[in-house]
Amino acid sequence: MPFPVSNPNFATDVRESFAKQAVMISIGAQMTRVEAGMVEIALPYRHGLTQQHGYLHAGIVTTIADSACGYAAYTLMPPQSEVVSVEFKVNLLRPAKANSFVAVAEVLKSGRTLTVVRADVFGFAEHGERELVATMLGTMMCLRRAEL
Amino acid sequence: MPFPVSNPNFATDVRESFAKQAVMISIGAQMTRVEAGMVEIALPYRHGLTQQHGYLHAGIVTTIADSACGYAAYTLMPPQSEVVSVEFKVNLLRPAKANSFVAVAEVLKSGRTLTVVRADVFGFAEHGERELVATMLGTMMCLRRAEL
Amino acid sequence: MPFPVSNPNFATDVRESFAKQAVMISIGAQMTRVEAGMVEIALPYRHGLTQQHGYLHAGIVTTIADSACGYAAYTLMPPQSEVVSVEFKVNLLRPAKANSFVAVAEVLKSGRTLTVVRADVFGFAEHGERELVATMLGTMMCLRRAEL
Amino acid sequence: MPFPVSNPNFATDVRESFAKQAVMISIGAQMTRVEAGMVEIALPYRHGLTQQHGYLHAGIVTTIADSACGYAAYTLMPPQSEVVSVEFKVNLLRPAKANSFVAVAEVLKSGRTLTVVRADVFGFAEHGERELVATMLGTMMCLRRAEL
Repeated sequence: MPFPVSNPNFATDVRESFAKQAVMISIGAQMTRVEAGMVEIALPYRHGLTQQHGYLHAGIVTTIADSACGYAAYTLMPPQSEVVSVEFKVNLLRPAKANSFVAVAEVLKSGRTLTVVRADVFGFAEHGERELVATMLGTMMCLRRAEL
Repeated sequence: MPFPVSNPNFATDVRESFAKQAVMISIGAQMTRVEAGMVEIALPYRHGLTQQHGYLHAGIVTTIADSACGYAAYTLMPPQSEVVSVEFKVNLLRPAKANSFVAVAEVLKSGRTLTVVRADVFGFAEHGERELVATMLGTMMCLRRAEL
Repeated sequence: MPFPVSNPNFATDVRESFAKQAVMISIGAQMTRVEAGMVEIALPYRHGLTQQHGYLHAGIVTTIADSACGYAAYTLMPPQSEVVSVEFKVNLLRPAKANSFVAVAEVLKSGRTLTVVRADVFGFAEHGERELVATMLGTMMCLRRAEL
Repeated sequence: MPFPVSNPNFATDVRESFAKQAVMISIGAQMTRVEAGMVEIALPYRHGLTQQHGYLHAGIVTTIADSACGYAAYTLMPPQSEVVSVEFKVNLLRPAKANSFVAVAEVLKSGRTLTVVRADVFGFAEHGERELVATMLGTMMCLRRAEL
């Protein structure tokens, strides 16, 4: 495991925090994988999440990528901390037209205060072929609970 | 007016395209202003759009900022064109806790193929004080309808 | 003045730190303005700084924009601190062909640890007309000297 | 080979264009690898390229990363085209203190007009251990020579 873990309960803490993100329930996203430095979030296609051409809106692509990045960073943070997004950049590589989407986030560099994370968002067609629809490079920040 | 307009019906075309963004209806966003090179989108706070601390999720902040940027660019594009997002970067400046939000996008540079746009997202408290919660810098692309 | 200043000697400290940036001497850049939350750096055109079409290389545009952002942030940091760049995003808006360039950086949001800064880089033609060639949106971090 | 090549002389064209980047000679950078969709540029440490703490300035890190990204994109472009940078985002992950640096750029998505590229910049210590000091995510544009 490349990253040192300081919170032995990180998986439980990540899932509990994710369960409090009301927007994830609203859009139908689920956390499908939690490992040290890595998180996946899946989202089925739904017409109510689309832009004018019927593709998943870039902001919704960003929503799952940002949560995946934040929680990937959070897996490496100490107990009693919180994670917030500082900034992210997203390149939209292909139209987000697919039956379902998965955002896969991996930590690039974990620091005491800041963690840099990369996420790829893949679309899956009906028969399972996947293609990369977007990529995010972002910075996440660790706050002690008292600072929030 | 600093930007040359090539589509005399830009305001109608922008509003018609916006009306097709199903995600805007789902989250409750409205387009509140359309001018040459400038668009505003408003969004009331709703619990179903929040992250784990009860603030508007960064992805939803991005959703209204991205649509505002895309349509600000679209106001300057020729008739029979479509706009897609190439990429954007967002800095989250303050917790997005407010009664309502407005994304204000303005074109920085309009080109034949690419348009660079900046958007600020403000939160409004109950008595109207506003504060800047996020800023976006993004690139939008003009496609002829045949290319889509 | 919109930003509170905690270091009364910020202008001297900024200029002393800038004088230690050997790259600024190498490329011929000068700091032309230092105010609370705002810094300008000027750079004359020089063939040795160009890319394949004879324009200023995007990395050199970035070099003056990044230093301007870092020092704009530094003007608002407490004494005995240091500033480092966390990340930045640059949009290249026009070919950087001009007799001289100026990067103008202004703080958007100053925090205890992180400061968000925007910089515009202008090119000046022989008779003084200026045009915007690039814009940066970046995040700067305050370190106490002991942390460095 | 994952990317289709439309210019059989891409390696020669890339090296000829790189040789015209005067800034590369000024800073002492060399192109050390050219493949379809992939370029490496190496840069020895030099005091004249540093910021206030004696580390390679983030703008110089960006200079080699941007050229690596541009030329990685250029390997996949048709003959008689030119490449320009649209935008890039850089995260600075560690202090750029090393004996030498290498920027390694790889195309993520190659399109007719736009190409998205990622670059990692590594520092090499005296005995060869490498560490990741920065990462770039950028967008490059193909211009026909007549458009330039």
